Amino acid sequence: MRALVYSDKLHLQTDFATPIAQPHQALIKISKAGICNTDLELTHGYMGFQGVLGHEFVGVVVQGDQHLLNKRVVGEINVAEGDCDMCRRGIPSQCRYRTTVGIFQHQGAFADYLALTTDNLFVVPDNVSDTEAVFVEPLAAACQILEAVHISPRDKVVVVGAGKLGLLCAQVLRLTGADVCVVVRREKPLKMLKKWGLRAVSRADLQDNQADIVVDCTGTAEGFADGLTLVKPRGTIVLKSTYTDIPSANLTKVVIDEVRVIGSRCGPFDAALRLLEAKLVDVNSMVDAHYPFNEAMQAFDKAFLPGALKVIIDF
Amino acid sequence: MRALVYSDKLHLQTDFATPIAQPHQALIKISKAGICNTDLELTHGYMGFQGVLGHEFVGVVVQGDQHLLNKRVVGEINVAEGDCDMCRRGIPSQCRYRTTVGIFQHQGAFADYLALTTDNLFVVPDNVSDTEAVFVEPLAAACQILEAVHISPRDKVVVVGAGKLGLLCAQVLRLTGADVCVVVRREKPLKMLKKWGLRAVSRADLQDNQADIVVDCTGTAEGFADGLTLVKPRGTIVLKSTYTDIPSANLTKVVIDEVRVIGSRCGPFDAALRLLEAKLVDVNSMVDAHYPFNEAMQAFDKAFLPGALKVIIDF
Repeated sequence: MRALVYSDKLHLQTDFATPIAQPHQALIKISKAGICNTDLELTHGYMGFQGVLGHEFVGVVVQGDQHLLNKRVVGEINVAEGDCDMCRRGIPSQCRYRTTVGIFQHQGAFADYLALTTDNLFVVPDNVSDTEAVFVEPLAAACQILEAVHISPRDKVVVVGAGKLGLLCAQVLRLTGADVCVVVRREKPLKMLKKWGLRAVSRADLQDNQADIVVDCTGTAEGFADGLTLVKPRGTIVLKSTYTDIPSANLTKVVIDEVRVIGSRCGPFDAALRLLEAKLVDVNSMVDAHYPFNEAMQAFDKAFLPGALKVIIDF
Repeated sequence: MRALVYSDKLHLQTDFATPIAQPHQALIKISKAGICNTDLELTHGYMGFQGVLGHEFVGVVVQGDQHLLNKRVVGEINVAEGDCDMCRRGIPSQCRYRTTVGIFQHQGAFADYLALTTDNLFVVPDNVSDTEAVFVEPLAAACQILEAVHISPRDKVVVVGAGKLGLLCAQVLRLTGADVCVVVRREKPLKMLKKWGLRAVSRADLQDNQADIVVDCTGTAEGFADGLTLVKPRGTIVLKSTYTDIPSANLTKVVIDEVRVIGSRCGPFDAALRLLEAKLVDVNSMVDAHYPFNEAMQAFDKAFLPGALKVIIDF
């Protein structure tokens, strides 16, 4: 089968061995897959991953449990071992022995076929398109903010970083009724936020120490520092992106202002599907380009451009 | 009056103007005062404070409201303005316009007299000695952990740093019934913890990623890094000390393990007094030395020694 493989460098292969579904797995024929910033980082050596990249996908089950056969599905990317303390606490996404699709010890979805644990699959409702379904994984990650923090409709929420994840977070957060704004540096998200009726601001527009919640979607030391100056005493900073290197962080300010810093990772697929089914989140506007699989290398070039939004690979 | 003053350098003055109590204030004749690590940092320029140091004290009200006159009192060190959003939320310790006794824009307690807002005073129960009462401020800060985080009796709690604050935190935390241990590097706290029936461990004794709660009382980048390796996924790190400079912090691990990092500062004086009154915390063992006020400079030298515990100045 065809596969986009990272092994020291990124390359297309046409003779990659088609995976064989194990008894507890389904074989999925991939229809579409999205490029995530994590994919870009993996091509720079993040996690030391070697293999087929890709973890945002939609496909059709061609082999596996009867009730899933021929169904359109998306897949939770954390494959849990099922018996560790985190699994028993009902948090399989933090399984201590997990593999992660296209990121850690599990082949990814930039390939004609993917074999994935049946338990991880979610059937896509009819009124959610394939393109929309590609966003379920990052949208679930945005929903995870609401698992980590109680956001009140009275809260002032600032999203720092208006990239792909920031725009999804802002859309999810506004559903709480809270006063949400997004710190924007580029033209493109500005128009999109305006269309959604979401408030875009520049950093200079915002007063220090006033936000109840800051969501840092930048993954940079500067983004975290901005979060710390924006958040009010006893406020919360949610970290949504992994960070480059080991950034400096003003932990003294965390102590003096009694701030809460909460890391947040993968989220609930079922919630993301409900939001898409109910048309409460607009992901279609966030697609920058589609590329046929044979042009996956060009798709990556496009995704690497500064300010690029979602680039989708069509199979 | 006599006063220990920091103005670019620390020095004793005998001709410092005695403060005049304002209508809402009491004048307190100081009986004893403790040296805190913050005092040591202030003599290195922390907060840019200039004036009388000292914020851990007990004294007798010699002027002020009738119901406080001649009473032994301790004092909450954050003097709130009373009308800001944090005050209105019932969090005067985070008042946006606060001054702080002996730390920020308010004269301190290393002096014969201190004028302090009546609202900040707490009468010391008869069975709590003056020496014990000196510990109310840091003990309240230890209690503040329990305001910031719900600690379950099922939790594994690790205190990193067995200095003055760490030993108070460990004593407060064990009252929850949780499984508490303290990472110790020196001989002195080892004996004290043993006496209290608290478990002392070396860093090497502990497995990574197993603690529900880590309390970092080191105020060092290494302490925070230790906390991050000790805490389990979805666990909590409480920061109890301010940090030297702007430390590096592995925020990516915070994201991937969905860790909560919670800053915690000053705490409830009434709770600390209840614990002392009930003899649930042993502070007497933590006194390293008493010095008469006239030897306050030597008291600071003693407090600066590595591994020093509480040094108390007697008036």
